Amino acid sequence: MGKIGKFVSVIVTSVLVLSACNTQSEAGEKQTVKAKENTTSQVFEPHKDLNQQPTPLKMERVGEHEVNVEMTAQITDIPITKGNIYKAWTVNGEAPGPVIVVNEGDLINFTLKNIDPAIPHSMDFHAVHAAPSKDFIDVMPNETGTFSYPANNPGVFMYHCGTKPVLSHIANGMHGTIIVKPKDGYPTDSEVDREFVIIQNEWYKYNDLNDFTNGTPSNVIFSAKALKEGDVNTNGTVGALVDSPLLAKVGDKVRIYVNNIGPNEVSSFHVVGTLFDTVYVDGNPFNLMKGLQTVMLPASGGAVVEFTVTKEGSYPIVTHQFNHATKGAVGTLKVTKDGMDDGSETMSH
Amino acid sequence: MGKIGKFVSVIVTSVLVLSACNTQSEAGEKQTVKAKENTTSQVFEPHKDLNQQPTPLKMERVGEHEVNVEMTAQITDIPITKGNIYKAWTVNGEAPGPVIVVNEGDLINFTLKNIDPAIPHSMDFHAVHAAPSKDFIDVMPNETGTFSYPANNPGVFMYHCGTKPVLSHIANGMHGTIIVKPKDGYPTDSEVDREFVIIQNEWYKYNDLNDFTNGTPSNVIFSAKALKEGDVNTNGTVGALVDSPLLAKVGDKVRIYVNNIGPNEVSSFHVVGTLFDTVYVDGNPFNLMKGLQTVMLPASGGAVVEFTVTKEGSYPIVTHQFNHATKGAVGTLKVTKDGMDDGSETMSH
Amino acid sequence: MGKIGKFVSVIVTSVLVLSACNTQSEAGEKQTVKAKENTTSQVFEPHKDLNQQPTPLKMERVGEHEVNVEMTAQITDIPITKGNIYKAWTVNGEAPGPVIVVNEGDLINFTLKNIDPAIPHSMDFHAVHAAPSKDFIDVMPNETGTFSYPANNPGVFMYHCGTKPVLSHIANGMHGTIIVKPKDGYPTDSEVDREFVIIQNEWYKYNDLNDFTNGTPSNVIFSAKALKEGDVNTNGTVGALVDSPLLAKVGDKVRIYVNNIGPNEVSSFHVVGTLFDTVYVDGNPFNLMKGLQTVMLPASGGAVVEFTVTKEGSYPIVTHQFNHATKGAVGTLKVTKDGMDDGSETMSH
Repeated sequence: MGKIGKFVSVIVTSVLVLSACNTQSEAGEKQTVKAKENTTSQVFEPHKDLNQQPTPLKMERVGEHEVNVEMTAQITDIPITKGNIYKAWTVNGEAPGPVIVVNEGDLINFTLKNIDPAIPHSMDFHAVHAAPSKDFIDVMPNETGTFSYPANNPGVFMYHCGTKPVLSHIANGMHGTIIVKPKDGYPTDSEVDREFVIIQNEWYKYNDLNDFTNGTPSNVIFSAKALKEGDVNTNGTVGALVDSPLLAKVGDKVRIYVNNIGPNEVSSFHVVGTLFDTVYVDGNPFNLMKGLQTVMLPASGGAVVEFTVTKEGSYPIVTHQFNHATKGAVGTLKVTKDGMDDGSETMSH
Repeated sequence: MGKIGKFVSVIVTSVLVLSACNTQSEAGEKQTVKAKENTTSQVFEPHKDLNQQPTPLKMERVGEHEVNVEMTAQITDIPITKGNIYKAWTVNGEAPGPVIVVNEGDLINFTLKNIDPAIPHSMDFHAVHAAPSKDFIDVMPNETGTFSYPANNPGVFMYHCGTKPVLSHIANGMHGTIIVKPKDGYPTDSEVDREFVIIQNEWYKYNDLNDFTNGTPSNVIFSAKALKEGDVNTNGTVGALVDSPLLAKVGDKVRIYVNNIGPNEVSSFHVVGTLFDTVYVDGNPFNLMKGLQTVMLPASGGAVVEFTVTKEGSYPIVTHQFNHATKGAVGTLKVTKDGMDDGSETMSH
Repeated sequence: MGKIGKFVSVIVTSVLVLSACNTQSEAGEKQTVKAKENTTSQVFEPHKDLNQQPTPLKMERVGEHEVNVEMTAQITDIPITKGNIYKAWTVNGEAPGPVIVVNEGDLINFTLKNIDPAIPHSMDFHAVHAAPSKDFIDVMPNETGTFSYPANNPGVFMYHCGTKPVLSHIANGMHGTIIVKPKDGYPTDSEVDREFVIIQNEWYKYNDLNDFTNGTPSNVIFSAKALKEGDVNTNGTVGALVDSPLLAKVGDKVRIYVNNIGPNEVSSFHVVGTLFDTVYVDGNPFNLMKGLQTVMLPASGGAVVEFTVTKEGSYPIVTHQFNHATKGAVGTLKVTKDGMDDGSETMSH
């Protein structure tokens, strides 16, 4: 591993300005939601000028029921909101990391390349059966670890770095979603026209375990992620859903794979203007609910939600815990005649 | 639209004293839950001396599957607790607003009269399918907007003003419950003797978006609302459930339509001394659960809960998130021989 | 155990040091989660030098469908974490109190002996049908109260002192779990090899109703409790799960009765390295869910969760609201070849 040298704590001045929340009412009264001052934040010395370019996810099927997945642990600047950069601990240079999609019954041969020069990282997939003390263990800086485990349960699952302090590794950005497609599909598969992945996570003061533990989030963000390579309508790499709408056309049945990866807060996921005809709790076809206005997601919890959009227009997507929506957890589904962006303004909250 | 004039921000000193929480233990030790000081709150100048009298809900059936509903957006003083007045942004002068009851399959022709002289308001019904950017749009001061949309899903749904900043409009009081009765009824309809509506909401510092976003509630309140005009046992206009008990008689099967309208917090709804034999999550007959001690409600989430009261006495109703119960989210169901109030003391928490 | 010195409760200086959260990253950087200073806490004068020894639970079956249960309300020092003593208001000298297990259909004849010399206490079982204003009433210091009520609903239920201010009585330690075994068992009974009980609760500043109501927890703790007398692998009296692992052997189907007794927070219960094959919400066999990564528990809510451990190793148990895990809500399930502790290190978070 070589010499890492001493970790000198440097004060970082990347102030997290909650610019999305400086709102001006129509009546001319200015209301400002103050972001936290970021005076105590610290970046590791070896991370100081480090901004490792995103690494494409490597994934290949090597058998009918076997896939190889390779991911990196790396340090990459993430724009939480426009102009608000967080030097994140990431998976593949994204935060949340890339979405992994496998099939129920797959064996996952997983490789973690830790290219963070400073600290160990690891990987805990909620989708698999594994012995954490052997299969989710630390991979040292500049080393590679390989592990195998089965994904026998269908659903929408969180993955995250499990290196201690776990809260720091999750809150600094090492999290994402793995989808395990059910062997027999969902009963509603044939009805669905569009699929999206939305992930909710919180951001706090930079690498501040005290704020992670005792504070409230500076930002709560929805990210849309590509379900498969080349997906349109999703900003599959970095950035928040608020910046670019999802698209559908009138009459489409829309499916969203939603995952609340916390690290601390629960979510009340809701799409304005519609109801969820079908909800599969944690994405398991057995856990069917119908006609929900809002789905309750525990920290790390997932769901598959489906609904049909009947009219052209702009449909805001929120957590109905509106303090979190105000801190950024919003997005838009734009419904047009043909499913193409017509350039109309989206509705803001 | 008339003259609105300039909006001068005035400091308001309407201190929210949490008097319900000044408790004195039997041992003589005094414990006081301090309410927040309310030094930064602001009321719009045009609202300053405004207290618009409550407007009765207008609702008429105009077809087998069509109803007209007219509501007002207005500024009205709401007693959150005794002597604690909040100059609320309201629907019809109530906060929460009046309960609307329609049938599954109804088309709702909705009119919003905005009699607030200062700012725009709007209406977002969680019960309907609509294009938010067209059907939930702002109605300017002293103007009227009319919209039509179907209510095709049975359940217990939130409605609220969707004008931005949405959090301010909800937290200042523009919220309520719409019940869509299932076409085929609930399987348990014939067993139910009494029905009530209970709504949970939070109050914060007056019109303080920073406190709405980053603070904790000053008060959390249960309101009982009339299910239909002339209902006994419910204070159908304004005021909290804590002030007057609900009534039932021994042996009654009681149904509560419960809705947690937030804006920020989830709820753990519970009735002391009983269990919910039947729970329909979000009020949809499909989402049946049995034997719950407590039902988890996301922000905006609803439920139908049913239970049978077997003994005379006083049954406290709470959210079992007891910090919120301590801040006011309590009520009482009084069970007597004949279902009439016998004047006995209610049990306090 | 060496010299411990005297535990003198002074107006209280028992500072709640969150020692579990003083973490040192592998890279040598020290991160500290500061606990709250405990300057305003107060102990009742009659409790000042009081530390009543734990009282074994008295329980005897007196009929096929009738049990006598006797519990005490008493003041006992509870080690929340090592060296961090809380002069708790307890049931039987434990906090959480002892687990009670009865059968669906049992009549419970319950006796509460209040040996706290200073203040009244009472008992609210979520498992029973009762008139709270008669059956859950206060028992005065040095007095005894007896009550009878049926436990007709199967499940995992909270019990707690219901004397006002209720939040103070719960937050100071008077809470626990009662399990009502279903008449026809759980469909999965024959598959289960090991059963455990895990209870989550929060601790705050000592007897500080303001902190209970407006603060955040100082500690969040998982306690393992004995399901029946003489259970191995559970520290059935006092202490947190973090101190001693639960044990299972490879291939075991493990059942956990889990109960989140708050008083304020919801829980996102999760076991690392596995998924819950079976979840019975609130412990009712009717409320079946499958394949959950995490179960959402409202304040006071319970569940039965089942999973099979397929590999030797150490499986952390957490609430995935990771700020709470960081404050102590962690445990370990150690899986060995033969189900005996092999002395291997547990995995920490």
